[in-house]
Amino acid sequence: MATIVFYSVNKTAHTAARRCVTSQLKGLASAGESVSRLASTHTRSVPLLPGTRWFSRGTGVRFMSHGTAGRSGKTRRGALALSGAAAVTAAAAVAGFLANTDHFQRAEMATRVPRAAKETEKEGDILQRCQGFMSPPVTDISVLQGNKDEMRTKMEMLIMETQADFCKALEKVDGGKFRVDRWDRKEGGGGISCVMQDGKVFEKAGVNVSVVFGNLTEEAAKQMRSRGKVLKGKDGKLPFVAMGVSSVIHPKNPHIPTVHFNYRYFEIEEEDGTKQWWFGGGTDLTPVYIDKEDAFHFHKTLKEACDKHHPQYYPDFKKWCDRYFYVRHRGESRGIGGIFFDDLDSPNQEEVFSFVKSCARTVVPCYLPIVYKHLNDSFTNEEKDWQQVRRGRYVEFNLVYDRGVKFGLATPGSRIESILMSLPLTARWEYMHEPAKGTREAEMLDALRNPKDWV
Amino acid sequence: MATIVFYSVNKTAHTAARRCVTSQLKGLASAGESVSRLASTHTRSVPLLPGTRWFSRGTGVRFMSHGTAGRSGKTRRGALALSGAAAVTAAAAVAGFLANTDHFQRAEMATRVPRAAKETEKEGDILQRCQGFMSPPVTDISVLQGNKDEMRTKMEMLIMETQADFCKALEKVDGGKFRVDRWDRKEGGGGISCVMQDGKVFEKAGVNVSVVFGNLTEEAAKQMRSRGKVLKGKDGKLPFVAMGVSSVIHPKNPHIPTVHFNYRYFEIEEEDGTKQWWFGGGTDLTPVYIDKEDAFHFHKTLKEACDKHHPQYYPDFKKWCDRYFYVRHRGESRGIGGIFFDDLDSPNQEEVFSFVKSCARTVVPCYLPIVYKHLNDSFTNEEKDWQQVRRGRYVEFNLVYDRGVKFGLATPGSRIESILMSLPLTARWEYMHEPAKGTREAEMLDALRNPKDWV
Repeated sequence: MATIVFYSVNKTAHTAARRCVTSQLKGLASAGESVSRLASTHTRSVPLLPGTRWFSRGTGVRFMSHGTAGRSGKTRRGALALSGAAAVTAAAAVAGFLANTDHFQRAEMATRVPRAAKETEKEGDILQRCQGFMSPPVTDISVLQGNKDEMRTKMEMLIMETQADFCKALEKVDGGKFRVDRWDRKEGGGGISCVMQDGKVFEKAGVNVSVVFGNLTEEAAKQMRSRGKVLKGKDGKLPFVAMGVSSVIHPKNPHIPTVHFNYRYFEIEEEDGTKQWWFGGGTDLTPVYIDKEDAFHFHKTLKEACDKHHPQYYPDFKKWCDRYFYVRHRGESRGIGGIFFDDLDSPNQEEVFSFVKSCARTVVPCYLPIVYKHLNDSFTNEEKDWQQVRRGRYVEFNLVYDRGVKFGLATPGSRIESILMSLPLTARWEYMHEPAKGTREAEMLDALRNPKDWV
Repeated sequence: MATIVFYSVNKTAHTAARRCVTSQLKGLASAGESVSRLASTHTRSVPLLPGTRWFSRGTGVRFMSHGTAGRSGKTRRGALALSGAAAVTAAAAVAGFLANTDHFQRAEMATRVPRAAKETEKEGDILQRCQGFMSPPVTDISVLQGNKDEMRTKMEMLIMETQADFCKALEKVDGGKFRVDRWDRKEGGGGISCVMQDGKVFEKAGVNVSVVFGNLTEEAAKQMRSRGKVLKGKDGKLPFVAMGVSSVIHPKNPHIPTVHFNYRYFEIEEEDGTKQWWFGGGTDLTPVYIDKEDAFHFHKTLKEACDKHHPQYYPDFKKWCDRYFYVRHRGESRGIGGIFFDDLDSPNQEEVFSFVKSCARTVVPCYLPIVYKHLNDSFTNEEKDWQQVRRGRYVEFNLVYDRGVKFGLATPGSRIESILMSLPLTARWEYMHEPAKGTREAEMLDALRNPKDWV
C-alpha cells in the first residue's frame, strides 16, 4: 500500500545572498532553536535511492525508535508508531474498545510497540533504518554508512527517526498525511520540513529536521566565547556541523494542548583536530485549559526520562523551561512548561547523547496519550475563542522572544516557511481580554502567571 | 442625545516597577511610534469637569478639525465628522441616494463639513474645543488655558481633536461606539485609548493618545546623540514632554483596507532653558486587494497636504514610508505605503506644526471615502482567507520590526493593551502560501514586492 507524499518540485532560485556565515552562526551556541532553521530557500525534489521506496508506508522493515522511555518507571508508556498492518487500526475505535481502562492506559495499549519491534532497536543496518524516514536523510546514506560510529551520524539518524515516528503517530490519529519538503542549504547541508495543515485533528502540525555544516569564521568563533570556550581555527576557519529536529503541533480541539519540542547537536573542530560539541533541547506543553491529569502525565513522563540519567536533570531543566518560555510583557508563561536545556556537554558524549535519545523518544508517549484522551471532547464557541486568544499569545512569544525565530528571521537565506511553521493557522487578539473570576479560563491564566510543580 | 461610553473603572495596581526611565526614553528620538505607548497600567475613571458633559454626542459646539487638506487640489475632499443631527445620516443610505456621482464624490458629499463649522476652526476657547473630545485632555484644562500659546498645548489639542474626529467618523460609518479607557503614567502624564471591537464595519479599531512628561536621565540623554544633538541637563536631568496620537483600523470586509497613522511631538529642555523639539509621524494604507483608484486617492490626498508645505515632503516621506514598513524576512512591504517622517525640526516650529496639522487633518479625507466606497462590496470565503493571511503579515511586521512596539514591550510599566491594540482581531498563517499567477492576490503581492508610485 504505497502512499503518495507531496513534494515541492519547483526549484526556487537561491535569491538571497548567503555572505553571512558569521551571522548565521552567531546564535548557535545559545539559540539552539535555530539549528533546525538554518536553511536555504532551495526546495528540491527527492533523489530516490535505487531499490528503495522511500514513501511506501506499511511495507518493509522500519526501525522502531521507542520503548526505552518510561521503561524504568511505574507508568511505562509504549510508543505510538506501529509498523505494518497494526498501524491501520483507527485510534478512536481502539479508544472505544478499551472503554473500561483509564485514559492513559487506553492510549498506551492502543500504541504499544510489539516486543519484536523493540528488539530491533539496538542495531540495524543504516539503509534499513532509513527506509522508515519521511525522506532520505540530509547526508548521503553512503557517507552515513562510512561514518556510522561518529556522533554526527548517530544524531542525524536519531533526529530523522524522531521526525518519522512523531509524524506517523500524528498521521495515525489524524488520518491526514504530512506534506514533505526537502531543501538544500547552499553552504552545506539542508533539511526536511514535514507539515500537515487543516487536518481532522490538527490545525497545523510541523516537524522539521535540519543538518547544516560548513566553516565558522573568526568572527563567529568570537561568539562562541559566550560559552566560555576559546576556539582556535586553522587559517582562521573552524569546520562545524549543527543539526536538530523541532516541532510545534496546534490541534483544532481546544481541549487538546499544543506541544513543542526541539533536540539539537553542535560540533566544531579546532586547529589541532579536537572537537568541541554540545547538545540542547526540550519538550513543553501549552494547553488552553488546565487538565491536572494531563499535566501530571506530561511532566511525569519527562521526569522519568530525565531521572534515568541524572536526578538533577528534571528539576533543573523544568526551571530552565519556565524561565525560557516566559512572555515578559504579559507576565505569563507560554504554557505549563516541560524541560529545556542547552550547552550540555558532560559527563561525556555518549551519556549526553543517551539522555537526548531518551528525551526524543519520550515525545510520543508524552503527547499522544493526551491527544487520544481528548480526541472526542466536545467544545463551545467560547472555548474555541479562548483557544484563539491563547494562540495569539503563542504568536507573541514566538515572534518577540524566541531566540531561534529571531535569529532565523535576521539571517539572510533562511527558509522562512520552516521558521514560521511554528505559528498557528489562526489566532486572535481581543482588547483588554480578561477571564471572569472562577472560570476555567481564569484557572488557566493563574497557572501561567504562577508556574506550578505538576509532579 | 447623550451616548454612554464604556469606562474601565477597576483600578489595577501599579504592578511593574518603573525604575527604568532610561530605557523608557531610550527609543523616543527615533522610535516615534512609542510616544503614544508610554503608559502605566493604571486605568482610571474619568473625572468629569463641572458643567461639562464629556460624553454627550451631538450636543454643544464641537471644534471641526477638517477642511484644509485638499482645499488647494482639484479633488477637494471634505472632512467626514459631522456634528449635530447631520451625523445620524446613515452612510449607506447617503451612498445609495447619490448613486449618480462617482465613489469619492459621493463620500465627499456625504461628509462635507458645513461652512459655518469650518469658520470656527482658527480659534475657539480651549474649554469649548475640549467638549468635542473623547475624554478630557490628559493635561488639566486650566493648565492648557494658562499656556495656550505653547507648542505642547497646541499639539495636545491637535492630537485630542484628531482622535475625536477620527473616532466619530468611524462610529458614524460603523454604527458602533468606541470604548474609552483613560490611564495615568505614574511618572507624569497618561493617555486615552479608544477601541471599537467586532463592530459592523470594523473588526478592530484603535485610536490612542498619550502625553507623557518627566525628566530624562543622563543615560537617556546619551541616546539623544544618535540624532546628532548633545544635550546638557541641569544636575544631570533634562525635563521632557512626548505626546502623540496613533491609530490602526482593521475592517471586516477584505475590500476595505487597513489604515495606520501616528503623529507625535517631542520636547526637551536643556540646562540654559533652551528647548530642543521635533515632530514625527505618518499615514499608510494596507489593502488586501489592489484598487488603483483607492491608492491614487490616498496618496494624492497625502501629496496635496505635503505640497502645501514643501515640494520635497511627499516624495521624500513616501520613500521613507516604503523603507520603514518593510517586512524584511518576507521581502515585501506591509502595505502600499503613504508618508512617514521623523526628527522634523525645520524651518521653524510653527511651520512644522502647521505641516503636522495638515497631515493629521488629512487622515479622515484620506481614508473614509475608501471605506464608504467599499462598504457594501460582497466578498467570498477565499477573499476573507487572503485577508486573514495578510493580517498575519501585519502581525509579523508589528511584533518583529515596529520600533514602537518593540520599545513598548521592552519598557517596564508600559500599557500593553494600548501597544498591542494595533494587532488585528484575527489572523492566519498558512504554510507555503503563494497565490496562483494572474490572480488578484498575486497582483497584490507584486505591489508589495515592488513598491509603486501611485500618484
